[in-house]
Amino acid sequence: MEFSAKQLAELLDGRVEGDAESTVSKLSKIEEGGKGSLSFLANPAYEKYIYTTTASIVIVSEDFKPTADISTTLLRVPDAYSAFAKLLEMYNAMRNSKTGIEKPTFISESAKIGKDIYLGAFSSIGDFSSVGDGTRIHQNVQIGDNVTIGENCTIFPGVTIYADCEIGNSVTLHAGVVIGADGFGFAPNSENSYDKVAQIGNVIIEDHVEIGANTTIDRATLGSTIIRKGVKLDNLIQVAHNVEIGENTVIASQSGIAGSTKIGKNCMIGGQVGIVGHLNIGDNVRIAAQSGVSKNIKEGKVVQGSPAYDYTEYTKSYAVFRRLPDLAKDLHQLKKTNES
Amino acid sequence: MEFSAKQLAELLDGRVEGDAESTVSKLSKIEEGGKGSLSFLANPAYEKYIYTTTASIVIVSEDFKPTADISTTLLRVPDAYSAFAKLLEMYNAMRNSKTGIEKPTFISESAKIGKDIYLGAFSSIGDFSSVGDGTRIHQNVQIGDNVTIGENCTIFPGVTIYADCEIGNSVTLHAGVVIGADGFGFAPNSENSYDKVAQIGNVIIEDHVEIGANTTIDRATLGSTIIRKGVKLDNLIQVAHNVEIGENTVIASQSGIAGSTKIGKNCMIGGQVGIVGHLNIGDNVRIAAQSGVSKNIKEGKVVQGSPAYDYTEYTKSYAVFRRLPDLAKDLHQLKKTNES
Amino acid sequence: MEFSAKQLAELLDGRVEGDAESTVSKLSKIEEGGKGSLSFLANPAYEKYIYTTTASIVIVSEDFKPTADISTTLLRVPDAYSAFAKLLEMYNAMRNSKTGIEKPTFISESAKIGKDIYLGAFSSIGDFSSVGDGTRIHQNVQIGDNVTIGENCTIFPGVTIYADCEIGNSVTLHAGVVIGADGFGFAPNSENSYDKVAQIGNVIIEDHVEIGANTTIDRATLGSTIIRKGVKLDNLIQVAHNVEIGENTVIASQSGIAGSTKIGKNCMIGGQVGIVGHLNIGDNVRIAAQSGVSKNIKEGKVVQGSPAYDYTEYTKSYAVFRRLPDLAKDLHQLKKTNES
Repeated sequence: MEFSAKQLAELLDGRVEGDAESTVSKLSKIEEGGKGSLSFLANPAYEKYIYTTTASIVIVSEDFKPTADISTTLLRVPDAYSAFAKLLEMYNAMRNSKTGIEKPTFISESAKIGKDIYLGAFSSIGDFSSVGDGTRIHQNVQIGDNVTIGENCTIFPGVTIYADCEIGNSVTLHAGVVIGADGFGFAPNSENSYDKVAQIGNVIIEDHVEIGANTTIDRATLGSTIIRKGVKLDNLIQVAHNVEIGENTVIASQSGIAGSTKIGKNCMIGGQVGIVGHLNIGDNVRIAAQSGVSKNIKEGKVVQGSPAYDYTEYTKSYAVFRRLPDLAKDLHQLKKTNES
Repeated sequence: MEFSAKQLAELLDGRVEGDAESTVSKLSKIEEGGKGSLSFLANPAYEKYIYTTTASIVIVSEDFKPTADISTTLLRVPDAYSAFAKLLEMYNAMRNSKTGIEKPTFISESAKIGKDIYLGAFSSIGDFSSVGDGTRIHQNVQIGDNVTIGENCTIFPGVTIYADCEIGNSVTLHAGVVIGADGFGFAPNSENSYDKVAQIGNVIIEDHVEIGANTTIDRATLGSTIIRKGVKLDNLIQVAHNVEIGENTVIASQSGIAGSTKIGKNCMIGGQVGIVGHLNIGDNVRIAAQSGVSKNIKEGKVVQGSPAYDYTEYTKSYAVFRRLPDLAKDLHQLKKTNES
Repeated sequence: MEFSAKQLAELLDGRVEGDAESTVSKLSKIEEGGKGSLSFLANPAYEKYIYTTTASIVIVSEDFKPTADISTTLLRVPDAYSAFAKLLEMYNAMRNSKTGIEKPTFISESAKIGKDIYLGAFSSIGDFSSVGDGTRIHQNVQIGDNVTIGENCTIFPGVTIYADCEIGNSVTLHAGVVIGADGFGFAPNSENSYDKVAQIGNVIIEDHVEIGANTTIDRATLGSTIIRKGVKLDNLIQVAHNVEIGENTVIASQSGIAGSTKIGKNCMIGGQVGIVGHLNIGDNVRIAAQSGVSKNIKEGKVVQGSPAYDYTEYTKSYAVFRRLPDLAKDLHQLKKTNES
């Protein structure tokens, strides 16, 4: 879709400075620009780009004062950043506004489907499952039996939700996410092989959770694996059986949390972190990327290392690690001096 | 489904103590309980919960002697743990008992399908492939050409099995598993780019193997990538081309094994472990989580570190690593003393 | 399909030595062989196997002189290795030669489809998307709106390509790959939770790129995440929003690259490497497996460690790390001597 500077001015309650008929059909960064693109200038550090940008229209704040000639069309608004953010949201909403049920899809006769939902082709909804109003489920999604999904969720293609799991409202699951596969539970037997321990719990995902592509969250052995309200998980993360992740905790890509560990609220966990099972991680904990956590962590602590401990101490030790060959030489020299 | 204490007593050959008409429709941990839930007490450490549990029925052993009042209904059996385990299995079997072929599915005319199978909607079976009796294939599964799948397997949604792969009996593949994608083989050419090395081998998965969600097992360049009988792989694991994993070896989440490495029997490999290519890992080896293995490992060894070596030695070195700043100070002091 | 030694001789311009009616239906390594299999001998180190191989036919070079009796049928060609490579390619081409559109599939009326394409069952192509000539899209693939896919690409089952992404020519995407999921962008708000930052950029994948199973490449917040010509990515890799990977760079399995980092040309990055965001990695850089990169790296450098630095220095420090307990003891002894 194309918009003129004039139309955008009406939409954003702004004022055009330049060609009011200039049109745009995409958004860009000011330093990248491109004909037909709309950009914005909010951070003064980027001001230099406005004099050379190839973007067709740039949103700026009322009080912006150019210090050189500008060839692009300006759209002046009270606050450039929030005007652009508003546009982003409108654009995003437009992009994800499909409703209706494509064909073929498979919906169990016992399933309950809300109003204004979207169900993409080749998706299926199992027995006794329910989907809330306004939820959009894309293509090739498989929702098992007895699954509850709340309102206004977005479930991208290729997601699998196993039987008995519960998803809250306004949850986003990206492509390839697997919710509720069996926990990794096996008991060694007398023949030196393993018997499967039945995994009959479920996964509960509360409201406003977002889960990245190809992340896996296993069902509990008994009880529930729980992802609390507002949690954000990146791509390719592993959450094992009976784990609980506290409200608004954020975890970066490729981290893994072993069985029955409980993580507090508002934690920030870096990428590729591993956390062993049956631990308690307090609220507001920060864990540096690639750390390996093998012990409980108290509220507010910052840790690093494998095994992980205090972040500052780790950094100091690692600084000495880098000069270990010199230290070893010094020590060798001292020994020789002392022996002579 | 609902069961009364009386019905469960008949099923488990037990005796009701309390309200025989009390009903349950789900299983719970004794410390979580909940109205309408059935729990069990086997471990004495959990005895305290039986006096306060909100579970409607609790399975206990014949010889259990309460030391306070109990308000829940008890179901006495010879062995509480095995009675509960039996229930779990029945529950699980019931949950996974679908048979029949949903519509639409795509089955090649040259494919051979066994008796009592389940094939979920939007799944396809390629040319000359075969599926054994009692195997259940869920939705959105793609089985390529010339694939052999044994009896009583369970293949969860979204699994892809590339052409020519062989799956044994009683194998479980969780959602998103990819079997037989091309190995990562490229030969540098004179133009500083890479030519693909054709990957025309396959993957062989023997009986009683279970593979976790989104795990990937690449086909061999030539010959076979082999997962031996009884192997258990967790989620998000990478197994490269021409790897062989020995019987009953267990590997935790997010570990990766590079090309042509051979792993022995009954090994235990932690999470996020990396093993380089062309190695031999002996039987009964244990590798600590996050280790990086760059050399062969002899039978029965326990290793840690990146690069990995003896576990006990690594632990000792890491203990010194943590006090390195102090050691560096001591050394500095000694040098000064000696020089003066 | 079965081929006789005579037929293969015609195909490869070779000469049969032994039974010209001997037939083969698969390829094997000479040390594995098997009745009905075709193998080759190019590397003299493997010569010993030709006297015992159970392969039915072995391709050898014109100048190969046996030093003992050979029972298998030989097929003599000018260059055994390139004859076998030619066969591999023919075999591979044959295996991937399907064309046509299976049913059911979902193709938007506004989508543009090229000539000689293959579209597997249960796949869908969104509004205003286009697929170039000769491209093969397997089963259960979901291609969003406004997606451009070039010529002669191969897209394996279960792949998801989000809206607005651009795929070049001769690109291979293995099963479960996710292109264009939202970048991991959230802004903390006053209620201690997070607001989503709209991710409205896209992913651009240039020609001759190959991407391994279950790898995820996030869309840019604004602008593009770019994978340049000839890049090869292994399985289960994470590429975050706004990353750019330079031409012919190769990355092994399970590595992750955080947002806005720019990687140069012809780099080699090991498995399970983590690279933090907003860095510049120069051309021809090599990063050892499991390293954690937290700083820019200059052209041509080789690094290891977490945090990563010069590879040789890391190796030396790690060698001292292994004998740290002894060093600590020596130091303790020296201190005692000095104090006495």
